[in-house]
Amino acid sequence: MSNPSLGVVAVGNALVDVLTQVDDEFIENQHKENGMERGAMTLIDELRAVELYAQMPEGVESSGGSAGNTMAGFASFGGNGGFIGKVADDQLGKIFQHDLRSMGITFDTQPLALGAKTGRCLILVTPDAQRTMNTFLGASVELTATDIDEDLIADAQVTYLEGYLFDKDTAKQAFIAAAEAAHNAGHRVALTLSDPFCVDRHRSDFLKLVESHVDILFANEEEIKSLFMQDDFDDAKSAISEHVEIAALTRGPKGSVIVSEGQDIHIEAAKVDKVVDTTGAGDQFAAGFLYGFTQGETLELCGRLGSLAAAEVISHMGPRPQASYKDFLSKAA
Amino acid sequence: MSNPSLGVVAVGNALVDVLTQVDDEFIENQHKENGMERGAMTLIDELRAVELYAQMPEGVESSGGSAGNTMAGFASFGGNGGFIGKVADDQLGKIFQHDLRSMGITFDTQPLALGAKTGRCLILVTPDAQRTMNTFLGASVELTATDIDEDLIADAQVTYLEGYLFDKDTAKQAFIAAAEAAHNAGHRVALTLSDPFCVDRHRSDFLKLVESHVDILFANEEEIKSLFMQDDFDDAKSAISEHVEIAALTRGPKGSVIVSEGQDIHIEAAKVDKVVDTTGAGDQFAAGFLYGFTQGETLELCGRLGSLAAAEVISHMGPRPQASYKDFLSKAA
Repeated sequence: MSNPSLGVVAVGNALVDVLTQVDDEFIENQHKENGMERGAMTLIDELRAVELYAQMPEGVESSGGSAGNTMAGFASFGGNGGFIGKVADDQLGKIFQHDLRSMGITFDTQPLALGAKTGRCLILVTPDAQRTMNTFLGASVELTATDIDEDLIADAQVTYLEGYLFDKDTAKQAFIAAAEAAHNAGHRVALTLSDPFCVDRHRSDFLKLVESHVDILFANEEEIKSLFMQDDFDDAKSAISEHVEIAALTRGPKGSVIVSEGQDIHIEAAKVDKVVDTTGAGDQFAAGFLYGFTQGETLELCGRLGSLAAAEVISHMGPRPQASYKDFLSKAA
Repeated sequence: MSNPSLGVVAVGNALVDVLTQVDDEFIENQHKENGMERGAMTLIDELRAVELYAQMPEGVESSGGSAGNTMAGFASFGGNGGFIGKVADDQLGKIFQHDLRSMGITFDTQPLALGAKTGRCLILVTPDAQRTMNTFLGASVELTATDIDEDLIADAQVTYLEGYLFDKDTAKQAFIAAAEAAHNAGHRVALTLSDPFCVDRHRSDFLKLVESHVDILFANEEEIKSLFMQDDFDDAKSAISEHVEIAALTRGPKGSVIVSEGQDIHIEAAKVDKVVDTTGAGDQFAAGFLYGFTQGETLELCGRLGSLAAAEVISHMGPRPQASYKDFLSKAA
C-alpha cells in the first residue's frame, strides 16, 4: 500500500446545472401535469428537458453534479482531488471540464464523442429556498467500467461514489469497478445515497453495495430511512451501524450524527443568517467531512467541517462554494 | 404613424457571460502579458478566448450583452420589448435565446448556421467590485442589415442601439439600417456609447451617427468626455446637448445628469449596502430610464428609475436583475 497523493477521487454524474427561481404555482402545475416531485430529483429524457426548459424563467448555468460539487468544496478546503465522469464533446461539456480543472482537480475521463449531449440538471428554487431538480442525464450515464482509471483511484485515500449513478446499468458497473479498484489498493470507499427516490428505485442493489463495498456512508434522514424501510430515524441508524465503518447522517437544521464503532457523535448545524437555496447542502457536508477525514482529523471535527461547508452553500444560490473554505479548519478546531 | 405595441427594440451583441472572481494579481499579470485593461472591455479572438478561459477560475454562465441586459431589466419593470442580435446555432446560443424569450421579449433573429460560435464575454470581477471584460464577439458581429426586422422596429416607441456593435463594419451597417427604419416609422432612436475605448476606436463614426440619427444618448462620464475629446465633464455635457434631444449621463456614485432642451436634471445615485459587482450598472440605468420614458413619465422620474435599477444590479454578481423591478415605479414616484 503506497502513500496516496490525492485525498479523494469522486465518481459521479457530470452535469451542468441550470438554476432558476420560480413561484410555488410553477411547481404545483408541473406536479399536476408532469409528476414533478417538489424537493426531489426527477429523471427526465431529452425531449422533456427541452420542453421544461422552454417553460422555465431565465436561468444561470454552472457546473454541478452531486460528486462534482463535493470535489469543488473539497478543493476549496485545500484538498487534492480527482474526478471520473462523462461529459459530451460540446460547449456545456467544456464548461464542466474547465471548472473542475481550474480548481486543480484531476479530470481526464474521455468525453463522449457521439450520441448524447452533456447532461444537465434543471433546478427550480422556490421562495422557501427548497430546490426541485429535473435531471437529463445525457452523456453522464454513458460512463462505463473502461472509464474507471484504476491508477487514479489507487492514488487516492478515499474513492467517493455518487448514488445517482445507479440510475443506469452501465454506470452501475463502472461504480462497482471503482469500488473494487479502491479496495484492491487498500483504500476506502465512500458512498452518498443522493436521494430517497433514487434509493427507492434501487434499494436491493444499494443494500448489496453497502454491505460488500462501502466503508463510509453519507445519507440524509429520508435516504437512510428509505434504505432500511424504517419510519424511525433511530432504527435506521442502528441498522446502518452494523454495515459500515462510518455513517455520516445529516438532518438539515437538526444537525448531523456520525455513527462509528457503536458510538454516536452529534454535530450541531452551523448557523446561517438566511437560507437562500438548499442546493448542494449534502454535497458540501460530504466535502467538509472528507477533507477532515483525509487530513486525519477526529470524526467530530470532520462533522463540524461538513456543517460549516453546508452552511456556506445554503446561504447563496448555487451548489458550489462562493467563499473559500480554507479557514474552516482553524474555525472548527 | 401607428400606435406601437412595444416600448423598446434593442439591437446589440448577443453574448453569453462567463463571470468569475479573481484577485488583483490576475489582472496585473494579464495586463503585462496580454494588454488586458482593468475596468474596460477588450476585444479578443477565439484563440485568445480559449487561452484566457483555461487560465480563469471556475465561472458562472449567464446571458449577457449590454443591450440584452437592458432588455432583461426593461422586461423586469413590466415593459414589452424586442431584441435583434445574432447567436450561433449552438448550446450557448440556445441559452441566450431562451433567457430573452422567457421574459416575453420578442427575439426572432435567425441564428448563424455556419462559422463562428455564439459570442461570449469573459468577465473578471476583482475584490473592489470592478469588472474587466474580455469579449470574443463570435457570431454576434455577423449581424447584417438583412437581419434588421423593420416591422419589429416600426412597432416600437424606441429603437435602442448598443455602441459595441460598431466594432465590426457589417454590424455597423445593420445599426444604420435600424436607425433609419425607426425614423421612417416616426419613432425615436437611442444609443449607448458602451465603453470609452470603443468610442476611441470609432469616434468620427460615432459623432456622425449621433448628429444624424440619435435622439436619446446614454453615456457615462468617461465615454462622453472621450466622444468630444474633452477633459472636463461640463464641457462634454455642453457639447452633447447641441446634438441630441436627451442625453442621460451617468457618473457612478455621483449620480447622473439628464440633459434636455438646455436644462440639466441632476439625479442622485440610489443607495446600495454593498457594491458586489458593477457589471451591468449602465445597462440597467438605461433599462429604468427607457421604461419611464416609454410610460410617458417625466425625465426626472426616468432618471430615478434608472438609478434604482442600477443600484439593484451592482448589489449582486451578474448583469441582470435578480429581484423584480415591478415596484420601482411606485417607489420612485
